[in-house]
Amino acid sequence: MAVSPENVPVTALRWRGESLEILDQTLLPAREEWLSLTGADDTAAAILRLVIRGAPNIGIAAAYGLAMQVALTPGDDEVRAGADVLRASRPTAVNLAWAVDRMLAFVLAVPPADRAAAARAEAEAIHAAEDAASAAIALLGADMLAGTRRILTHCNTGTLACGGTGSALAVIHELAQRGDLAVLTCETRPLLQGARLTVWELRRAGIAHELLVDGAAAGLIRRGEVDAVIVGCDRVAANGDVANKVGTYAHALAAHAAGIPFVVAGPTSTIDASIASGDEIVIEEREADEVRHAGGALLTPADTPCRNPAFDVTPAQLITALVTERGIASPPTRESVLALLATPFGQAAGEAAG
Amino acid sequence: MAVSPENVPVTALRWRGESLEILDQTLLPAREEWLSLTGADDTAAAILRLVIRGAPNIGIAAAYGLAMQVALTPGDDEVRAGADVLRASRPTAVNLAWAVDRMLAFVLAVPPADRAAAARAEAEAIHAAEDAASAAIALLGADMLAGTRRILTHCNTGTLACGGTGSALAVIHELAQRGDLAVLTCETRPLLQGARLTVWELRRAGIAHELLVDGAAAGLIRRGEVDAVIVGCDRVAANGDVANKVGTYAHALAAHAAGIPFVVAGPTSTIDASIASGDEIVIEEREADEVRHAGGALLTPADTPCRNPAFDVTPAQLITALVTERGIASPPTRESVLALLATPFGQAAGEAAG
Repeated sequence: MAVSPENVPVTALRWRGESLEILDQTLLPAREEWLSLTGADDTAAAILRLVIRGAPNIGIAAAYGLAMQVALTPGDDEVRAGADVLRASRPTAVNLAWAVDRMLAFVLAVPPADRAAAARAEAEAIHAAEDAASAAIALLGADMLAGTRRILTHCNTGTLACGGTGSALAVIHELAQRGDLAVLTCETRPLLQGARLTVWELRRAGIAHELLVDGAAAGLIRRGEVDAVIVGCDRVAANGDVANKVGTYAHALAAHAAGIPFVVAGPTSTIDASIASGDEIVIEEREADEVRHAGGALLTPADTPCRNPAFDVTPAQLITALVTERGIASPPTRESVLALLATPFGQAAGEAAG
Repeated sequence: MAVSPENVPVTALRWRGESLEILDQTLLPAREEWLSLTGADDTAAAILRLVIRGAPNIGIAAAYGLAMQVALTPGDDEVRAGADVLRASRPTAVNLAWAVDRMLAFVLAVPPADRAAAARAEAEAIHAAEDAASAAIALLGADMLAGTRRILTHCNTGTLACGGTGSALAVIHELAQRGDLAVLTCETRPLLQGARLTVWELRRAGIAHELLVDGAAAGLIRRGEVDAVIVGCDRVAANGDVANKVGTYAHALAAHAAGIPFVVAGPTSTIDASIASGDEIVIEEREADEVRHAGGALLTPADTPCRNPAFDVTPAQLITALVTERGIASPPTRESVLALLATPFGQAAGEAAG
């Protein structure tokens, strides 16, 4: 990977027709550096290292990664090998497998000589669809949360995570355009996507915000200082259970206890209808060093044993609504979630699916 | 304050007959440095700066701080002024006000010429009572949690926080002596008392432990990986609501949802019978810089607005038992909590108060 020191408006990735550039999110907010990717291997490495992150953006990057790999090695075996490398880079986000499988099916149906152009076009189509999904989620979510003045969010779900202006953060952008909004942003240990990335996006957008440690959210919710909680999702099971960044479940419990809405926003590409419930979702366990450090500082002895699940599962019973580009499942149930998947994009805007 | 570089066994404070030495907990685990205190002002400053911390230890330090002040300036006005400075250093922990008020009443009843010796003796009595309370809590709590193999705790509640070997951590020590025990230790942002202090104490004691970010606790509890949660307390209301380190309430919600015990351990000096419920507890809001930094590293732009409540309130309905040196209130209610206060220390060991 080559480093480009260019400074640009807020976006997580730039497709240059034949190569992909991604903003190195591990360096934010201190530095804005762009990396050029060339194929499946370095794209997978960037995903694993969280240079690019967020379930929808991982899918977009993987699609471009496979397109670049197809241009280099268009044979069936090489394409399949590239797809395997990309699919394995992170296990929890379903968008990654979804995008890779969609690309693979499309590419293998085309003669090798035509594959490079076809793969690029398909990756661009995936990217465009995620951008459009973000815009639709923003409108549906803001309609649903009209009147919300104080909203709490977790992790980063903006343009650094998704197409367009994001999922949950896209709703926040839209709410802020419609009226006064104050955002409480959880720092999101261990990797601090809230403190590093969401604060960065909210500052650039001029949206009022306050940062808090993850453990402070439940108490503030209980004290009546939050009107609604909105988060993104990394994988949604058929019954509406949601895997999202570790720390999410506690916010859902607190919102439920306080009787305020707990809303999940994400594109339907995040729904995995093949799994019945959240109990079947594989939770990625990451390196202990992420827990031992924060912002580069060592917090505890370097050999301290750690647990580091990257995600947790929030049961559908705690979720007020799942907002997607195809409509809202409220409450999310097996019936309402599968109804979303059966709804063509563009038809159901404004209607609740259940 | 003078710095003494001496290295010693685990203890948070040493009374030298006329002066108090405290271990600088802000430097742990990297360095063990001791500070010598001389009166009310520097003791209050050390409490405010969290050089010494933990509700019971703050009370002990304040008692010695006032004793040293009385030796310097035994007049009524000076003694009262010293008490005011100490009482104001941290608002949430009741032990501080309790110890200062007990010292003040005792000292002012004695002629000025006799006050220095009397104040020292009274501070030593407070310290000895907290040591004895810790030992009693350890036995009662371990009896109650017999058979627990995987226990989760928050913040630091060991000898660095309390008399003896602590409150919740004293129970953990006792359980570990009786059988296999694995401890999940939440790092406890923002000031990382779990990562810095509890890990340090558990390592020295040879007790198996794993560190996790605060947001990971609820998900692990939901997945069935925790048998019980035990925490300390900074203030207990008459109805059994508990103010404790920020992040505690979310663990209580998760334990309740999973049907596992959520146990609070602390000396009766932490009970404030003058407040009816947790809604009346003043929650200390600390500096934004604590949230912006971790382990000395700046995590977000230096002017990012923050919320930083130091504590949250867990309602009594979520608490399985309150374990004190005078017995166990299970469940904690106004009746069972006040019954504890009416029980002389040493009589009720082994009996549940409600």
